[in-house]
Amino acid sequence: MTRPTSPLDPEIRILLERVSTATLATQLFKRGFRTRFLTGVLPLRPDKKLVGVARTLRYVPMREDLDHMGVFVNPEMPQRKAVELVGPGEVLVIDARGDRTAGTIGNILATRILQRGAAGIVSDGPFRDMEGIRQLDFPTYCAGPHANTNLCAHHPVDVDVTVGCGGVLVEVGDVLVGDSDGVIVLPRAIAAEVARDAAEQEVAERFVLEKIQAGSSIVGVYPMNEATAEEYRAWRIKQGAR
Amino acid sequence: MTRPTSPLDPEIRILLERVSTATLATQLFKRGFRTRFLTGVLPLRPDKKLVGVARTLRYVPMREDLDHMGVFVNPEMPQRKAVELVGPGEVLVIDARGDRTAGTIGNILATRILQRGAAGIVSDGPFRDMEGIRQLDFPTYCAGPHANTNLCAHHPVDVDVTVGCGGVLVEVGDVLVGDSDGVIVLPRAIAAEVARDAAEQEVAERFVLEKIQAGSSIVGVYPMNEATAEEYRAWRIKQGAR
Amino acid sequence: MTRPTSPLDPEIRILLERVSTATLATQLFKRGFRTRFLTGVLPLRPDKKLVGVARTLRYVPMREDLDHMGVFVNPEMPQRKAVELVGPGEVLVIDARGDRTAGTIGNILATRILQRGAAGIVSDGPFRDMEGIRQLDFPTYCAGPHANTNLCAHHPVDVDVTVGCGGVLVEVGDVLVGDSDGVIVLPRAIAAEVARDAAEQEVAERFVLEKIQAGSSIVGVYPMNEATAEEYRAWRIKQGAR
Amino acid sequence: MTRPTSPLDPEIRILLERVSTATLATQLFKRGFRTRFLTGVLPLRPDKKLVGVARTLRYVPMREDLDHMGVFVNPEMPQRKAVELVGPGEVLVIDARGDRTAGTIGNILATRILQRGAAGIVSDGPFRDMEGIRQLDFPTYCAGPHANTNLCAHHPVDVDVTVGCGGVLVEVGDVLVGDSDGVIVLPRAIAAEVARDAAEQEVAERFVLEKIQAGSSIVGVYPMNEATAEEYRAWRIKQGAR
Amino acid sequence: MTRPTSPLDPEIRILLERVSTATLATQLFKRGFRTRFLTGVLPLRPDKKLVGVARTLRYVPMREDLDHMGVFVNPEMPQRKAVELVGPGEVLVIDARGDRTAGTIGNILATRILQRGAAGIVSDGPFRDMEGIRQLDFPTYCAGPHANTNLCAHHPVDVDVTVGCGGVLVEVGDVLVGDSDGVIVLPRAIAAEVARDAAEQEVAERFVLEKIQAGSSIVGVYPMNEATAEEYRAWRIKQGAR
Amino acid sequence: MTRPTSPLDPEIRILLERVSTATLATQLFKRGFRTRFLTGVLPLRPDKKLVGVARTLRYVPMREDLDHMGVFVNPEMPQRKAVELVGPGEVLVIDARGDRTAGTIGNILATRILQRGAAGIVSDGPFRDMEGIRQLDFPTYCAGPHANTNLCAHHPVDVDVTVGCGGVLVEVGDVLVGDSDGVIVLPRAIAAEVARDAAEQEVAERFVLEKIQAGSSIVGVYPMNEATAEEYRAWRIKQGAR
Repeated sequence: MTRPTSPLDPEIRILLERVSTATLATQLFKRGFRTRFLTGVLPLRPDKKLVGVARTLRYVPMREDLDHMGVFVNPEMPQRKAVELVGPGEVLVIDARGDRTAGTIGNILATRILQRGAAGIVSDGPFRDMEGIRQLDFPTYCAGPHANTNLCAHHPVDVDVTVGCGGVLVEVGDVLVGDSDGVIVLPRAIAAEVARDAAEQEVAERFVLEKIQAGSSIVGVYPMNEATAEEYRAWRIKQGAR
Repeated sequence: MTRPTSPLDPEIRILLERVSTATLATQLFKRGFRTRFLTGVLPLRPDKKLVGVARTLRYVPMREDLDHMGVFVNPEMPQRKAVELVGPGEVLVIDARGDRTAGTIGNILATRILQRGAAGIVSDGPFRDMEGIRQLDFPTYCAGPHANTNLCAHHPVDVDVTVGCGGVLVEVGDVLVGDSDGVIVLPRAIAAEVARDAAEQEVAERFVLEKIQAGSSIVGVYPMNEATAEEYRAWRIKQGAR
Repeated sequence: MTRPTSPLDPEIRILLERVSTATLATQLFKRGFRTRFLTGVLPLRPDKKLVGVARTLRYVPMREDLDHMGVFVNPEMPQRKAVELVGPGEVLVIDARGDRTAGTIGNILATRILQRGAAGIVSDGPFRDMEGIRQLDFPTYCAGPHANTNLCAHHPVDVDVTVGCGGVLVEVGDVLVGDSDGVIVLPRAIAAEVARDAAEQEVAERFVLEKIQAGSSIVGVYPMNEATAEEYRAWRIKQGAR
Repeated sequence: MTRPTSPLDPEIRILLERVSTATLATQLFKRGFRTRFLTGVLPLRPDKKLVGVARTLRYVPMREDLDHMGVFVNPEMPQRKAVELVGPGEVLVIDARGDRTAGTIGNILATRILQRGAAGIVSDGPFRDMEGIRQLDFPTYCAGPHANTNLCAHHPVDVDVTVGCGGVLVEVGDVLVGDSDGVIVLPRAIAAEVARDAAEQEVAERFVLEKIQAGSSIVGVYPMNEATAEEYRAWRIKQGAR
Repeated sequence: MTRPTSPLDPEIRILLERVSTATLATQLFKRGFRTRFLTGVLPLRPDKKLVGVARTLRYVPMREDLDHMGVFVNPEMPQRKAVELVGPGEVLVIDARGDRTAGTIGNILATRILQRGAAGIVSDGPFRDMEGIRQLDFPTYCAGPHANTNLCAHHPVDVDVTVGCGGVLVEVGDVLVGDSDGVIVLPRAIAAEVARDAAEQEVAERFVLEKIQAGSSIVGVYPMNEATAEEYRAWRIKQGAR
Repeated sequence: MTRPTSPLDPEIRILLERVSTATLATQLFKRGFRTRFLTGVLPLRPDKKLVGVARTLRYVPMREDLDHMGVFVNPEMPQRKAVELVGPGEVLVIDARGDRTAGTIGNILATRILQRGAAGIVSDGPFRDMEGIRQLDFPTYCAGPHANTNLCAHHPVDVDVTVGCGGVLVEVGDVLVGDSDGVIVLPRAIAAEVARDAAEQEVAERFVLEKIQAGSSIVGVYPMNEATAEEYRAWRIKQGAR
């Protein structure tokens, strides 16, 4: 089977590992995007940066006759199928409609996803055995813990279709970036450009923050007026290539 | 193109036009289904009974660059495509994630759907120009009015996939029945059986209601004990086949 | 069995049939009560005034093994028991925790309650066959329609205990008054006094409204300053005993 | 005192009285506005068109010692002051933070506002004595009925400041248009231009609707392709000046 | 006074201390229970396992005249009474209707409950001085912190009646099990059987997790096919009696 | 410019640094205040006590044409202006209508506020780069993290007006006290008196807690009966003036 996603350019990945979701949100806002940050989805591992390419799993409300323990023996069952599809550098994105009345994935499947080299997991529903998943060595994001099996609330229905997650449209191949604030989704076509501008913005903000920490007012500094901008350009050169 | 749905058996349609969603909910409950009635979706025309077969339209959250007025010129745009697919005896079911911040369909498209012979429209989001749609001569259900175009909140993404609507799983071909309480979804495989048992239940309830109206207590009557059941069987015969 | 409630003094009943819930809310507010009006509970019959004494029915969340169709054959099942307890001048108040995912009572039981001479029904959950209940000749209040049987979401557990309904504490014997705005609950001990002061307030407001309709400003009129109060006292005498 | 708003150009008023909020929403969407329609605010009089200029009243949460019946004797109390400020062609817009636990205005004050020649009232909270207000001969919009006095939940704090209402920024002088769907807010600077383009759009939509009603598909018609546009231009001329 | 609950069989208690709520949820799901895990109730001490028998305390909405500081001097006031009733191995379960606008219990009472030998506290409302309670040496669960006294929102009304907590029916004597995901409620009649099957399931899951961690796919492993099951039975024997 | 607030009496500040928000809530409750604790606003630094005087910043919903990156160059833009106004001993209180779809302030501005000697920041919306703000050496409170710039959801409109925050009225000059439970607002006029009574209450509660920890029942102890009160007075003297 051919992969439906292409890997991220390593240079872009490096840039994205360095910039915050807040900076990316500003860059997206400048380009007319106001709704690319997932609402209600929190990091289990704020210490680990997420950068990866989206694979998706879609849930709809469960139906009592369809959603019983027997479905798990079928490897084509979409939840199980998705777990065995997601690969290196990819992130499994679960559209659970923001429902908080059942888990969406648990520790055993999350362990398998980690083993497959995935970059992380993002769900707008809860995790089961959330503490177990927190201990896995990769970034994961969810809407809190819930012990119920996903079949209590969900019918897994599709893999690798366009979904909504945390109120955000996610296409297969989009770039997800996550940090301690949460997760933002870059449309693939502009990911490189946004990454570069965000990296540049962060250099400038480091300069600004230093000035503020040294006692400067924000007036003329944040944002910079022409005098500060000149000062910045000198500082920038002194700093070297970052 | 072949239809993805088969028409409803006319005898079943007649039974379903006669029974209430409350009765159908009881029959489904007896079979283990607790979650087949749409929550938050109200009738514009409580005077008109809805009976039809599901076709579906799926929305995900909008993205600013994808969802502009230009998309409507493309007849493959899923919202427009769905309108020209739904046919006689069918119901267009719109999965709008229960979002209430934009319309999901308006008067011109609803008129077209009526013209195509459809049985009705069911959306878990609002309608635009809701009063215009109310005046159309068929049953329609939504979550209230909203003037915003669907692109303010939604990206139409798929037709004829399994969706959630009002918290209920809907498969293409499922049977929707609506009355003044709202809409219930019968899994296609059991629709005929449920319709027959519901019709039978309603005859019995007419008998019970007559007794209550005549001053009887509910004890032994609702539900019936053996004595009342016997009385009922006699009444049933006297009534004839209805 | 002795009734747990005493009937309302007929003179007080007459006063309460005349005053609005808005006026009663003001009188309660003056006495330090800010939270006696039910939120989210709407009239099916805004044309009919509700005045009655509370009997209560308490629901808790359902449990799958306890809440099946078989429970209805037991006349001690609290929902059925409550229906056969409520009597003339009384109102059945259903505490459904404001849950909107199932009906709380249906047309047959509501008909029986009407037959028993009850003053009305108030539920903070939905009704089944709401249109059927609307056609009954007494005031009823609920949170909209829902076709599911109450067992889908509720386990009826108690009758005639103190409950919450629409966010308001209701004791057995409290006085419920309802109009087109909704339902307010008067603690029994102060019902008579509140009724009298509310009736008096409404006479004054009729005077004020006449003045406003004649073009007066609200300044010095609503509320009245001394000059207007004098004018009012003269008007009051001219009007006679109301 | 000079008015903080200038009256609407009569020609623009006439255009706005003719067009729907759905059409205005489309025109605003084309100009980059996605969030100008009030969510959760419904018409009491869907038969009456609202067109008027915004005056505002801002509520914050109540504080027990500040918000007692005594405050109403002060004519500078913002709620009472606002009522005596709003004038012909103006709409009183109440920012109640969408709170649904108390009324925001009642029948006597609404009557006074009507007497002062105002164009309507828009609140994102409930009305007290909502049926009384419904009977007044002008368009009013709210979030349902509630009998509690506003002081139970609100502290009136300001008049004629920029507010949020139903999730929409409203500046004094903005143009509000309401119909059976609800209320939309036009920034004053673009109201005339939006009104003209909306009127033009509605002529075209009448043409489209006629074609759909006559059995046409939406393909090439909604939106129009070049052939239909030509046909439309001929129809437009035949129709005369509208 | 005789205890309304019987203590848990020590062997069952040991099993339950070992298994996760996720595993118990699966066992309950297999028996037809989809709704036994509390929603919105989080652990203050994820490091401490909760196993205990339910005692209950029911709150309804406060009424201004009933709920003042004076009520606390009465030892029969239900909140205070409940604190002095709960005993060794028991859990106090507070039904606060999921309201988040006031605390439901504070540090002094929680300390007394710990002193009485109770197994824990579970509330679907907030705690006051939550950090103080977190430091007590037993597992406690709530909906976050809130400084307001319970009388701001609640009227304590009953002890040891069937309640709802976090959307789940809880009977006196039911078995509560809590871990880092939250709390699940086992109907007393099936607690022993569920505990045994859950313990067995966890042994199998340990085997599965080891395989996944060693690089195995989930296909044929989770759930096990016949070959894996055979391998498991061998592993199981080698492990000894667990 | 003269300050709109007067500094807190140092003696009162010392008392407030010692007492918990739970104790203050009790003292306010005794004076008739039930609604002074912010709901949904959580501490980033539960280890740091907040005591300060309110300065305010008001947001309304954004409008696409008003809220673009260009606004930040204007030092009169209210968000930026507020940052340069707040001074030693003051707390910036942000009214974001409880909206959780965008940040309300970020790390650079928060750093500047700390540099200006402010006592803390309280917002009923999220923070951007929340982890960065958590590391600043002062108490801050918000509704979680969100990477979006405030302009995605908000239009900053006013400084130093009366606002609502977390459902609580806040006047400029009010006293905010925060601990691990959250934030409570003391009306300025009664802050000193409440502080003194709260400090006294905490001494008594320390005595009670010691008794409970030593095995005492709560009966007669919490609250104290006359015998315990006498014992307390003796203990109080032995403890000295504290």
